[in-house]
Amino acid sequence: MLEISQRGHEMPASPIRKLVPYAEAAKKKGIQVFHLNIGQPDIETPKACLDAVKNSRFTVLEYSHSAGNESYRKKLVSYYAKNNIEVTSNDIIITTGGSEAILFGCMACLDAGDEIIIPEPFYANYNGFAIQADVKVVPIKSSIENGFALPPIEEFEKAITPKTKAIVVCNPNNPTGYLYSASEMDTLKEIVLKHDLYLFADEAYREFCYEGTHTSAMHLKGAEQHVILMDTISKRYSACGGRIGAFITKNKEVLNAAMKFAQARLSPPSFAQILGEAAVDLPDNYFEHTRAEYLKRRDVIVSRLNAMKGVFCPNPGGAFYAMARLPIDDCDLFCQWLLEHFSHNGATVMLAPATGFYSSPGLGKDEVRLAYVLNIEAINKAMDCLEEALKTYPGRK
Amino acid sequence: MLEISQRGHEMPASPIRKLVPYAEAAKKKGIQVFHLNIGQPDIETPKACLDAVKNSRFTVLEYSHSAGNESYRKKLVSYYAKNNIEVTSNDIIITTGGSEAILFGCMACLDAGDEIIIPEPFYANYNGFAIQADVKVVPIKSSIENGFALPPIEEFEKAITPKTKAIVVCNPNNPTGYLYSASEMDTLKEIVLKHDLYLFADEAYREFCYEGTHTSAMHLKGAEQHVILMDTISKRYSACGGRIGAFITKNKEVLNAAMKFAQARLSPPSFAQILGEAAVDLPDNYFEHTRAEYLKRRDVIVSRLNAMKGVFCPNPGGAFYAMARLPIDDCDLFCQWLLEHFSHNGATVMLAPATGFYSSPGLGKDEVRLAYVLNIEAINKAMDCLEEALKTYPGRK
Repeated sequence: MLEISQRGHEMPASPIRKLVPYAEAAKKKGIQVFHLNIGQPDIETPKACLDAVKNSRFTVLEYSHSAGNESYRKKLVSYYAKNNIEVTSNDIIITTGGSEAILFGCMACLDAGDEIIIPEPFYANYNGFAIQADVKVVPIKSSIENGFALPPIEEFEKAITPKTKAIVVCNPNNPTGYLYSASEMDTLKEIVLKHDLYLFADEAYREFCYEGTHTSAMHLKGAEQHVILMDTISKRYSACGGRIGAFITKNKEVLNAAMKFAQARLSPPSFAQILGEAAVDLPDNYFEHTRAEYLKRRDVIVSRLNAMKGVFCPNPGGAFYAMARLPIDDCDLFCQWLLEHFSHNGATVMLAPATGFYSSPGLGKDEVRLAYVLNIEAINKAMDCLEEALKTYPGRK
Repeated sequence: MLEISQRGHEMPASPIRKLVPYAEAAKKKGIQVFHLNIGQPDIETPKACLDAVKNSRFTVLEYSHSAGNESYRKKLVSYYAKNNIEVTSNDIIITTGGSEAILFGCMACLDAGDEIIIPEPFYANYNGFAIQADVKVVPIKSSIENGFALPPIEEFEKAITPKTKAIVVCNPNNPTGYLYSASEMDTLKEIVLKHDLYLFADEAYREFCYEGTHTSAMHLKGAEQHVILMDTISKRYSACGGRIGAFITKNKEVLNAAMKFAQARLSPPSFAQILGEAAVDLPDNYFEHTRAEYLKRRDVIVSRLNAMKGVFCPNPGGAFYAMARLPIDDCDLFCQWLLEHFSHNGATVMLAPATGFYSSPGLGKDEVRLAYVLNIEAINKAMDCLEEALKTYPGRK
């Protein structure tokens, strides 16, 4: 009998997207669904960026260089310089979204059976890339009690085996919103230097820091050969559909290996490279507006959540996610119930069950992730829904 | 010591792109380089398609559905129907180029150590996706003597082991230009049914057939559960930089597995989906013009090649490639020499050494691939260069 692959069986369905059919059914019943389940910002893509695409004048939509257009890579050098990240255009491969940068990292640095350590909860799609590379994810639990701070160094030491090849850090963090401090980043540097590991740094939300400043893995002096930056313009410029990211490292051997995988897929998308290049020329205050808007939303959602009986939501320092502990027995059932059996003033709210972000079975059953990607009015209405739902939900603890 | 992965070591550099530095050096010396080395068409992308992107009116460049926009998938159903391929929008996942469709096929159907059989010479990047999936490519030699026809069924039978999971067919073929007949496709059907294998069908050049008609793997009655179509709009509409392809199968289990890999990378590029959707509405005679142009070019390049002393070029039935046997000792050295040490009337020609398309070491050393993606005048000048070069090349046999 024809069989699909073992990795096809093992591959998890997206925890964010698996509730979609229930949301669609709710909408068909006429219920408004507030989508706090997915990191799709409502902020408009900068008009100057969209216009750059519309005003482009080529007549043949050609392959670009496999590493991305040289003009774009050169522009990016100035973007990174503004963030105190010193790179040259030769340290950069433009990728098809941050997703492909993560895949290239796995392929260039890891072999079947290797292990990567990731503080959990973590961005669920890391699992998908690990499965494609036949790599084992070793989670270390971070805790909602301290806002999902970096687990103590001893926990990393305990998890490291001869098979360990890399640590993955997402800063600011998706799904927790936690912003790692300079000293926490230094701890990671110590570990990767001591044990000769790669540090995969996902910094998709670099610009969205509300408490303190961002420490990039590229700032870690002495760890240059260990660090691979996996970046994306998706969240930064509300350009998720462009599918443009970057794979950046000072380690030439790693870059050359990644380049061969880049050549195999020919080139990253051409249209959105134009958009990304135009984005580097946005005024320096562009992020101030966006950041201020997200900060307002964060303050509303966190205070609304903590005002609900039995709910605890640590104040996230960055990104546009909050993790909340709810007084419920099973968040998967609760999130489905919200869509299937609940409405308040003709509306309901769609949340992401936290279980999908944990690798250890049984963790996160009373937690949900909320993406504050809607305007304040919508967030307030969504919180009204959640508050009412918690009062009537049969699985309340 | 930090080490890159074994697969990073094993991954071949692109045979098409590794001569690029020599071409750049030649251009810096003021020499014009005729690029017959890469399948980047010079045909203009249809204006209606580019305009569709320019006239799009969204304000947020959002993620699309992981399977691609529903409106586009529905449109594609009518495109395939015109090609006598009956599919529904639910059989289709829009991919980031044909490349990603191949990767999804490997990931959804194959595990580490599995084997795939491919007639060689073959599209070199299949190697790259096989290495990413830890899969072993088993080549079966096709021969320039009979124009690279399908090897006899006995050769397949000999190559099949308990580890064999799939056969890959590219029709019309890149790099040989060979167009498989209905009866050859039937042979492949017999083999995959008898041995319960997948048939991965790369039909990027479907529209470009000059001798006879195209038999799609999707036409093979009774093999519906075995066939996976890996498609792309890159060549069809001169839209290589769009990075839009499709993964199509009637096998629901395979489609569902592929869908999980699609979810992990979130979505295919949004801009070029708009372009692809508009392309379905091009007038039915759109391909006639393009096909007629390529046919003229093929006739020129094949007759010019066969008129050169010691050169043999079978007449390719499709795609826009020709493979030629040259009276030289080593095509890698020859192609490099053309760029480094040769010019004729201030110009030279860049060819793809055939060795990169063979998996068996030592094969193809006196063969090159020529992509007829330049206009007739340029092709004639390029052939003038090649003719002169063969007269003076020191490694002539």
